[in-house]
Amino acid sequence: MALTLGIVGGGQLARMMIAPAVELGVDVRVLAEEPGMAAALAATATGDYRDLETVRAFARGVDVLTFDHEHVPQEVLRALVADGVRVHPGPDALQFAQDKLLMRARLAGLGMPQPEWARVTDAAGLQSFLDEHGGRAVVKTPRGGYDGKGVRVVADPEEVADWFDGGELLAEELVDFTRELAQQVARRPSGQLVAYPVVETVQRDGVCAEVIAPAPHGSTRLTEVAASIGTAIAEGLGVTGMLAVELFQTTDDRLLVNELAMRPHNSGHWGQDGAVTGQFEQHVRAVLDLPLGDPAPRQPWSVMVNILGGPADGTLESRFPAVLEAHPAVKVHTYGKAPRPGRKVGHVNAVGDDLDAVVYEARAAAAFFAD
Amino acid sequence: MALTLGIVGGGQLARMMIAPAVELGVDVRVLAEEPGMAAALAATATGDYRDLETVRAFARGVDVLTFDHEHVPQEVLRALVADGVRVHPGPDALQFAQDKLLMRARLAGLGMPQPEWARVTDAAGLQSFLDEHGGRAVVKTPRGGYDGKGVRVVADPEEVADWFDGGELLAEELVDFTRELAQQVARRPSGQLVAYPVVETVQRDGVCAEVIAPAPHGSTRLTEVAASIGTAIAEGLGVTGMLAVELFQTTDDRLLVNELAMRPHNSGHWGQDGAVTGQFEQHVRAVLDLPLGDPAPRQPWSVMVNILGGPADGTLESRFPAVLEAHPAVKVHTYGKAPRPGRKVGHVNAVGDDLDAVVYEARAAAAFFAD
Repeated sequence: MALTLGIVGGGQLARMMIAPAVELGVDVRVLAEEPGMAAALAATATGDYRDLETVRAFARGVDVLTFDHEHVPQEVLRALVADGVRVHPGPDALQFAQDKLLMRARLAGLGMPQPEWARVTDAAGLQSFLDEHGGRAVVKTPRGGYDGKGVRVVADPEEVADWFDGGELLAEELVDFTRELAQQVARRPSGQLVAYPVVETVQRDGVCAEVIAPAPHGSTRLTEVAASIGTAIAEGLGVTGMLAVELFQTTDDRLLVNELAMRPHNSGHWGQDGAVTGQFEQHVRAVLDLPLGDPAPRQPWSVMVNILGGPADGTLESRFPAVLEAHPAVKVHTYGKAPRPGRKVGHVNAVGDDLDAVVYEARAAAAFFAD
Repeated sequence: MALTLGIVGGGQLARMMIAPAVELGVDVRVLAEEPGMAAALAATATGDYRDLETVRAFARGVDVLTFDHEHVPQEVLRALVADGVRVHPGPDALQFAQDKLLMRARLAGLGMPQPEWARVTDAAGLQSFLDEHGGRAVVKTPRGGYDGKGVRVVADPEEVADWFDGGELLAEELVDFTRELAQQVARRPSGQLVAYPVVETVQRDGVCAEVIAPAPHGSTRLTEVAASIGTAIAEGLGVTGMLAVELFQTTDDRLLVNELAMRPHNSGHWGQDGAVTGQFEQHVRAVLDLPLGDPAPRQPWSVMVNILGGPADGTLESRFPAVLEAHPAVKVHTYGKAPRPGRKVGHVNAVGDDLDAVVYEARAAAAFFAD
């Protein structure tokens, strides 16, 4: 009997799990939010992931339940676990990806390096944090933010006055960083863990634009410290499946934890074509508690560039003849999503021996999809 | 609008086109012979590919029609073309993969090197071919043979007496060969063509057991001659999509054409993990008339070993924990087919710098699935 993997959420991360699941002979099923989503090919159900009975019905007959995102409510997750469903990552881990205040407190408990932070509940509290941190801070809603949403850099509590209605906020020091990095690890329920090489991520407007793997100028110390942070968080929080730890590399050369994602992550897309075992295959193996694959790069350098927005004429496919002709060794991955400004609709991966050439090739290929 | 690709036939070759089609954002649909086949995930119809109306209904709304096998009858193919369906490979090419006598005659017309052969229609004709070729010959039914079926080595016409009822047969000299090779090329309707490196194939009981890419001890001359044969056949026969040319390397160092396949082929499975552009992605690109990808190897050596038969306990999955733990860098591909003696149910790919080590790793991993 084939193993059956249920994925809650029909976005591109679910979509990209389909290919490796099929190769491994895993029967993959998706609970999509609506018809026609990125992972529609494997969608066996459509419905609201916040509704327990919808998710419960979907979970019947799957060996393991996993996720395209971290938004399934704790009460749904806990009811499924009580039903006996194998849920990976489980609610005890996912709560830290769902609530940034919980995460900061737990990471502090684990002794992880992170920006200075505080829980603030009113303007006075935020003002006092601002006063202690040079007059500026990053303020985040603890829940529901992603891709720059729910994050503001402020110098005055007035700038987040609308958010205080929602209750507590997370204030963080504005870190003086030279670049952003991401460390991925995969962990099985039975404990096996592998660490990917730390990568450099380039954000634009709060959205991941480009990833270079491994991170250039990565000393042995940098690599080891990043891997040890990823390992400690995965083990400390009991993460199963893929974990991404977004990191700041500071001007004084420390690594500080920015955000966590407990699922395949944009910073790991390079591995589809650049790693022996890409993150989507690895996530499938990890949540099914199968032995993990080798996370080593296949080539010295891999570069991923996101296709953001896409062509104004509404079709990525119209650009295929030109981009594939110009770049026969680049890999184009599309998500089956309609282009619209700023939306992640696909990415390209390039690999090779010479970093400058690989960066150029990935950017040049992605540029064919620009508006 | 996404491009829509229809695949007739639900076997493992269709299954393995799904992953690259999804990544390219191609809407892939399969007409499967029955429910639960290897490509069931993408099956949108079930029915008999010999029935024109079944295939015609399936072809409605697809941009291009292609195949998992070469068995769709000429009259069905020609009716589809008359309907205006873009069929790749088309009937004019496919006839040469469907009828070995037609193929031999056409290859002779193209000046391709091949074993000596004759069309024989009775025992006397075969006896005379035997007399001229040392008393032994390979006899093939012109149509319907594969994986060793429809092929017999005979010394006496009596041994194929049952076949003469069916009409004409193909007699071929028994070639004195040192090894078997396969040359793949991809060709677009608009003419672009790329050649893969020639590979060595190892057959057991008429079934492909192992492939080494590129072929060891391959001189520049061998590589060039093989590529030129593949190119000449693809162009001469008007093949679109993937073409595999099975070759004998003779004891006097000639290359002779053995068989043709106009679809992805077992000899190209290595490229899923070992080539910049694997044959399944390449076939999808070629039949959609998109620019072809780079066919170069990513690593010095790739070895594919078929999983034939599979475990007697009936599940490949039961062996996953052991094989994945022992071989974290090997790629296991399974076809969702029930194990039974001799059946191709999956394969493993290994890649690396040292041929002996790669051969060992691929064989050792495949051995976990042995009965």
